[in-house]
Amino acid sequence: MRGVLFQRVAIIGFGLIGSSLARVLRRDSPETRIVACARRAETLATVKRLALADATTDDAAAAVAGADLVVIATPLSAYAEVARRIAPALEDGAIVTDVGSVKGAAIAALQPTLPKRVHFVPGHPVAGTEHSGPEAGFADLFRDRWCILTPLPETAPAAVARIAALWEMAGMRVATMAADHHDKVLAVTSHLPHLIAYTIVGTATELGQDLQSEVVAYSAGGFRDFTRIAASDPVMWRDIFLSNREAVLELLQRFNEDLTALQRTIRRGDGEALHEWFTRTRAIRRSIIEARQA
Amino acid sequence: MRGVLFQRVAIIGFGLIGSSLARVLRRDSPETRIVACARRAETLATVKRLALADATTDDAAAAVAGADLVVIATPLSAYAEVARRIAPALEDGAIVTDVGSVKGAAIAALQPTLPKRVHFVPGHPVAGTEHSGPEAGFADLFRDRWCILTPLPETAPAAVARIAALWEMAGMRVATMAADHHDKVLAVTSHLPHLIAYTIVGTATELGQDLQSEVVAYSAGGFRDFTRIAASDPVMWRDIFLSNREAVLELLQRFNEDLTALQRTIRRGDGEALHEWFTRTRAIRRSIIEARQA
Repeated sequence: MRGVLFQRVAIIGFGLIGSSLARVLRRDSPETRIVACARRAETLATVKRLALADATTDDAAAAVAGADLVVIATPLSAYAEVARRIAPALEDGAIVTDVGSVKGAAIAALQPTLPKRVHFVPGHPVAGTEHSGPEAGFADLFRDRWCILTPLPETAPAAVARIAALWEMAGMRVATMAADHHDKVLAVTSHLPHLIAYTIVGTATELGQDLQSEVVAYSAGGFRDFTRIAASDPVMWRDIFLSNREAVLELLQRFNEDLTALQRTIRRGDGEALHEWFTRTRAIRRSIIEARQA
Repeated sequence: MRGVLFQRVAIIGFGLIGSSLARVLRRDSPETRIVACARRAETLATVKRLALADATTDDAAAAVAGADLVVIATPLSAYAEVARRIAPALEDGAIVTDVGSVKGAAIAALQPTLPKRVHFVPGHPVAGTEHSGPEAGFADLFRDRWCILTPLPETAPAAVARIAALWEMAGMRVATMAADHHDKVLAVTSHLPHLIAYTIVGTATELGQDLQSEVVAYSAGGFRDFTRIAASDPVMWRDIFLSNREAVLELLQRFNEDLTALQRTIRRGDGEALHEWFTRTRAIRRSIIEARQA
């Protein structure tokens, strides 16, 4: 890559993803000026303390002035409001991207409000931890993970290529697909697992105080992996389930059928069928290890 | 501790747990002689190659001759047969313990056959990984984890104390409780999580070949944590579900109710209720971190 990829980047919403991207820019593109925008004064104070941006503001319109790239990294429920605020202040030809986990909803919230004179490239870096906030970020969060871009038919290929280059700089592999396909795939790989983890941890917490301390003590038997997932940011996940409702509910239907089948197998004491099922699921773990996603 | 805790230890079944315990003995009690017993010649060859035992045999009766401690570490379904084979060969006053994940079933399979002249201390070191076999073991597997002993009313306290000392040597914290209580607690902390993980990974693998490669690629969104759990040893887990059927099915009932409630909340689009649920589950993660089980 010759020259600087982006001169001035406005990052709206400075949580785990926003702050990790800022760290990538600091590391790999030190000439890029970063403007951090967040609603909470505490977040902006942390950004300053960690020197993750050249300027900070709680005014999204001010943040995007002069920016050739705007990254929307707030929870999904704030998108429509962010779009309304930044629309008049965006530079001609600027690229606007986002990092939201549900692309159909992201496009629905942003596309109608963003002016035609900017390039909108919806994106989703599939990376995260159970921690949230600007202090939880780190530049290597994205390394070897996938970023999915879901450009619209009218999106300029050159703008897509520049966003792809940004995430490749962060160490990601980049794929493009239709937004609705993305939302179906992520319902399987991310939304359903989180829903199940939230459920099982909820079930365990309702077993009464006595049993609860034992559940914590003996969590190494498998439960703690679910608690890690179920510790993810509540606002982000509320928004995901509300935004990808149809795909999640449809998949949950299938999951319920499978769970009922497995339940019946246990009730019948059919050891052979259990063994077969558990051997099959082992194989997919191997695929993930081979794909370097473990 | 003065002197050697055990002079001669027979480990019947040399998988992840058996081989990890052998490594602990090698490290912390080098004078202890270890006899490894396994059915498969391949396993015994690995034990020899790794020098994890002083003697190897596929004959359980021969293994326990002269042993002051016998550790049964086979899958639960082999317990009754192991007991029948070793009963006549056990030394007077020897201690027999096991590492099985379901204590009611372990006791039912062993207790009637073991002679009264030995001390039977049922036990469960709550530790593991998704890997199995003698090569997967390591001495630090047990560090900071809990071992639950479920002695019978007639078990001699001195024998319980010696088994507690064994697992403490491995770095474990030791608790004692009734077998049926253990089985209820573990149904929550281990058996239900595994059942759910096996189900969800099964659901995902049935989505068709095209989607499957995408599920693997984008698994970092949460799914891969389930695949790790669902890669656990199929024989061990078949036995667990068959052995702890009642507790697992009862708990599954509660889980299903909670899942239905969460499903309804999503269908209704009740963001406030979702946020409340997800905030509650976050708290239990903190408890686990505080209890140093994360």
